[in-house]
Amino acid sequence: MEITAGQLLSQIEYPSDLRKLNREQLHQVCDELRQFIIDVVSVHGGHFGASLGVVELTVALHYAYNTPYDQLVWDVGHQAYGHKILTGRKNVFHTNRKYKGISGFPNRGESEYDTFGVGHSSTSISAALGMAIASKNRGEHDRQHIAVIGDGAMTAGMAFEALNHAGVANANLLIILNDNCMSIDPNVGALKEYLTDITTSHTYNKFRDDVWNLLGKLPVGKKFTRDMASKLEASVKGMVSRSSNLFESLNLRYFGAIDGHNITKLVDTLQDLKDIPGPKLLHIVTTKGKGYALAEKDQTKWHAPGLFDKITGEIFKKSVEAPQPPKYQDVFGHTIIELAEQNENIMGITPAMPSGSSLKFMMEKMPDRAIDVGICEQHAVTVSAGLATQGMRVFCNIYSSFMQRAYDQVVHDVAIQHLPVIFCLDRAGLVGEDGATHHGAYDIPYMRCIPNMVISAPMNEVELRNLMYTAQLPENNSPFVIRYPRGEGVLPDWRRPFSAIRIGTGRKIQDGRDIAILSLGHPGNFVTEALKELMTDGLQPAHYDMRFVKPLDTDMLHDIFQRYDRVITVEDGALQGGFGSAVLEFMADNDYKAEIRRLGIPDRLVEHGKPAELQRECGYDAPAIANAVREMLKSTITVHAS
Amino acid sequence: MEITAGQLLSQIEYPSDLRKLNREQLHQVCDELRQFIIDVVSVHGGHFGASLGVVELTVALHYAYNTPYDQLVWDVGHQAYGHKILTGRKNVFHTNRKYKGISGFPNRGESEYDTFGVGHSSTSISAALGMAIASKNRGEHDRQHIAVIGDGAMTAGMAFEALNHAGVANANLLIILNDNCMSIDPNVGALKEYLTDITTSHTYNKFRDDVWNLLGKLPVGKKFTRDMASKLEASVKGMVSRSSNLFESLNLRYFGAIDGHNITKLVDTLQDLKDIPGPKLLHIVTTKGKGYALAEKDQTKWHAPGLFDKITGEIFKKSVEAPQPPKYQDVFGHTIIELAEQNENIMGITPAMPSGSSLKFMMEKMPDRAIDVGICEQHAVTVSAGLATQGMRVFCNIYSSFMQRAYDQVVHDVAIQHLPVIFCLDRAGLVGEDGATHHGAYDIPYMRCIPNMVISAPMNEVELRNLMYTAQLPENNSPFVIRYPRGEGVLPDWRRPFSAIRIGTGRKIQDGRDIAILSLGHPGNFVTEALKELMTDGLQPAHYDMRFVKPLDTDMLHDIFQRYDRVITVEDGALQGGFGSAVLEFMADNDYKAEIRRLGIPDRLVEHGKPAELQRECGYDAPAIANAVREMLKSTITVHAS
Repeated sequence: MEITAGQLLSQIEYPSDLRKLNREQLHQVCDELRQFIIDVVSVHGGHFGASLGVVELTVALHYAYNTPYDQLVWDVGHQAYGHKILTGRKNVFHTNRKYKGISGFPNRGESEYDTFGVGHSSTSISAALGMAIASKNRGEHDRQHIAVIGDGAMTAGMAFEALNHAGVANANLLIILNDNCMSIDPNVGALKEYLTDITTSHTYNKFRDDVWNLLGKLPVGKKFTRDMASKLEASVKGMVSRSSNLFESLNLRYFGAIDGHNITKLVDTLQDLKDIPGPKLLHIVTTKGKGYALAEKDQTKWHAPGLFDKITGEIFKKSVEAPQPPKYQDVFGHTIIELAEQNENIMGITPAMPSGSSLKFMMEKMPDRAIDVGICEQHAVTVSAGLATQGMRVFCNIYSSFMQRAYDQVVHDVAIQHLPVIFCLDRAGLVGEDGATHHGAYDIPYMRCIPNMVISAPMNEVELRNLMYTAQLPENNSPFVIRYPRGEGVLPDWRRPFSAIRIGTGRKIQDGRDIAILSLGHPGNFVTEALKELMTDGLQPAHYDMRFVKPLDTDMLHDIFQRYDRVITVEDGALQGGFGSAVLEFMADNDYKAEIRRLGIPDRLVEHGKPAELQRECGYDAPAIANAVREMLKSTITVHAS
Repeated sequence: MEITAGQLLSQIEYPSDLRKLNREQLHQVCDELRQFIIDVVSVHGGHFGASLGVVELTVALHYAYNTPYDQLVWDVGHQAYGHKILTGRKNVFHTNRKYKGISGFPNRGESEYDTFGVGHSSTSISAALGMAIASKNRGEHDRQHIAVIGDGAMTAGMAFEALNHAGVANANLLIILNDNCMSIDPNVGALKEYLTDITTSHTYNKFRDDVWNLLGKLPVGKKFTRDMASKLEASVKGMVSRSSNLFESLNLRYFGAIDGHNITKLVDTLQDLKDIPGPKLLHIVTTKGKGYALAEKDQTKWHAPGLFDKITGEIFKKSVEAPQPPKYQDVFGHTIIELAEQNENIMGITPAMPSGSSLKFMMEKMPDRAIDVGICEQHAVTVSAGLATQGMRVFCNIYSSFMQRAYDQVVHDVAIQHLPVIFCLDRAGLVGEDGATHHGAYDIPYMRCIPNMVISAPMNEVELRNLMYTAQLPENNSPFVIRYPRGEGVLPDWRRPFSAIRIGTGRKIQDGRDIAILSLGHPGNFVTEALKELMTDGLQPAHYDMRFVKPLDTDMLHDIFQRYDRVITVEDGALQGGFGSAVLEFMADNDYKAEIRRLGIPDRLVEHGKPAELQRECGYDAPAIANAVREMLKSTITVHAS
């Protein structure tokens, strides 16, 4: 569907067009940009609230700065829709997050205005600081470097690491703290409370503002303003000690807090800040979902609402005829409560994903036992380890790709100490529209090399429940990974009684002839589908749901390799070092020499699209599995004797 | 050698013995403990300065608190020698860091006083907070939880993440910030400067101290003191805004800074702090190496000096007859300068390891182009990525096991964006005395699954130089890993002219018969040794130094598998998903069916000891390789036909 941009917006292809407008026209640009985002996202989907919240900031940044020479890094990047629309991608914006369309995040391959690819939080300060140091070393003293980071992202440790370096690096860096009190869910933690404190305080900040206003009233002229600025800065230093503001403590000049929806004030402020050298932080206050009343009111729901009627605000659901399978997330969310009701040692930890993981159900019901610790995967894992030393059975729920943030903590704080923390790796495998940064592609290889780990993947909802049940039993004393995909499962009737699973055992799904298919996790359902198709050709491969990639079910594997000389492995994960490789290692160690074909995510980046589109592209959906069977059976039986 | 403890120390087996002494005797205990550490470490080796710096703190903690019921977590843990000596390990302390001896770090398997295993920095607050939350949930309100963390460790992001949570968790946690201005090298960054500022400031802290002193003079009695404390706290809140101290900003009550070598003051302070509920931070100032003049003067050198004459301070060196091979670290340190002199885009980044990595040479010579960013691996990687977007060729030097801290940044900020950052993974493979937490065992599997990566390992110093040279050439546009071990190489004559290596190519070291050995990195030298031994048996395996694990030299592998039906792979890394598995994947994908034996680090934790002892234990030293050859050749050629 063609979406028409407003009168001014339709004239803007690039920021240079924006910069031709009068300041007075910027209000209208903001209105039109906001409307365009609403028009497109309501029909085509995507993230919503975050981009609405930074419409004014986006316009102000591209108006005040000389992008792309001046370098702008968006943290996380799901708020960068306005930025994309203003930087050459208005006409393709409706392809956002679609297969072969533009990415939902800034992406260096897409535009020179996207200076740094993002998706995971809290990288922007480090990246922009790197750019600023490069400019400093090259003598590009006029070049500006801006990181825009939310208060949620600011809680992750790497943002603090970057502040600690920025404060002494003497490079030209502006950090814009976009304070909207939200991650996807409401932001939590001491920093959030501090920010609320200082935005409502009338002492220190008032004083700073006065100085700042004075600065704004000085005669224009770069040289003069810069000189004045440093003099004023010096006098301020004398009067207000460095230690009186958290950011000043870290040697960043602090400005704000100002209203992030006041376009005039934003433009004025940014233009003045260009003349203040060194590291500085501008604190702006915005409202996530700004300008769309429903989104302002329920910010979590409208973070990424799906398609909706922009007039009524009705969010469209799939039409439902029969009972549908639940999301794996909801199975997790309801099952942990059932288990926690039986086992008082169970606790739940999520780093800022109570809604996404569905731990929110337990947080509501058992607030002392389910904790959102904020965007901080590292701490989430180690606080879980600390709890585990006291006999707590912690379900630490982290998206597979975000667990990469806490890899050392898994190794060092959990596995080396052999603590039975249960890691629920949500969104394992190809996640779909979020694309390359968010695919949970690597967890099997990066977990499998760690001693003491148990690594499992359920083929369906009942298996997920039983793996969760098994992991928390006293018999399990190991760190226990349960990886499962984003979205719906396959069993409408999923809430069945718990049944323990012997750790390291698979399930034979069906006996067969000539060839065996070994699947791990939900792709087992693709195998089921493929088998139906193959049956019509008179082919009947055996199917095993291996369930555990560590420890492997070696009894079952011995049986398989004694019976079958052709084997296919299927996994929703990277092939390098993955489940298939574990099977190869078993073969090598036991001197089996079957023909083997491994299906899974190949050794290249996979972009965004619907999961089914991406699985097809990667060659492990049902038709691909059926084809692999046909091809392997086509070849005559050749003995590659040694 | 038997080391005798002093008069009081010899009576102390456990903290309960310590607690029987009078306060007046604690000075003597400190003196004797310090002397015992000097006596043992000078003769048996180990970390030195850190433990000397916390002698008084260690004694005060075990005197004031009811350990092990009260839970004490040491950050990093190389300062915990005094703790070990006072908690049942005095008589085995001389086995510290030796093969089968006690660990150089706190270790849960070793003592109930070691509440949490450590080694990597900045985990203590998270771990202790987890314990405190468990106690809170169980109603153990009298139980104390203490994390001792240095100012260096405080710069790592996960410490900040933990502070952000601690500030709102309402659990009974005391953080002791041990401020000695040092990591292994001098601490860097804005936080360090802030801490210096507040320890020398006479405004806010003076005021807090006054309040604190008042509190100390109150009538004893828990109930009364606690009530008074909260009232005082409330009034302080009214007078000094939360935003006036960095830690107070994060809702932690801040106490200090006090002299960490004043045992009486420490004991008084700690005993009073027990009655202050909630999260709090005590800032103490200590001197690393305290009590040993030379160590106080050159703190980096005396961090872990090796064996020395405790009277003269002479550090013993190995007696040298012929020119010795250099350390790989020094080859890196000198080579990066040579390259940087030719290529103005080259920069060096280290997270707090300028001495350990030898980047210090470049930092001295080219201070703008070589940066110590502090203990912050995540930021180190992403700031390198930011620099790389500007065309800089960054050598980001991080120990293999510490790179686990920055795994997501490697994936998300470097590999997905295909930025040609050069990762020098120092201390890859088994590192020796530092043990399980420090072995660089997992980097091959965790790096190999990431698309776009080049992963290499030099067999010797010249190869390291040539890989470094190759990585920075304009022809390379990929992230490039060079993994190399701790310590000496094999070539005294190492400084030879650079020569480019074609990426993804190995070297045939020698042709052979019947069997081929494929090595990656420095274990190639074990193969050389094994081949000498085997020659005397009339056996002549071929030897290939594969050099790259990604991309694999597929031409060479085709040649190898066409010529040999028995293959051994050797690597200094985890076998699960490692180099040998990459070879198995190649075989499976190309339908080769040789017999294969993979030598490397097995799937279990490897403790501490000399590298040679550990390599023997793991079965990939020269004799093990020779044995594997003999065994494989002994077996008759059996065809495991399909």
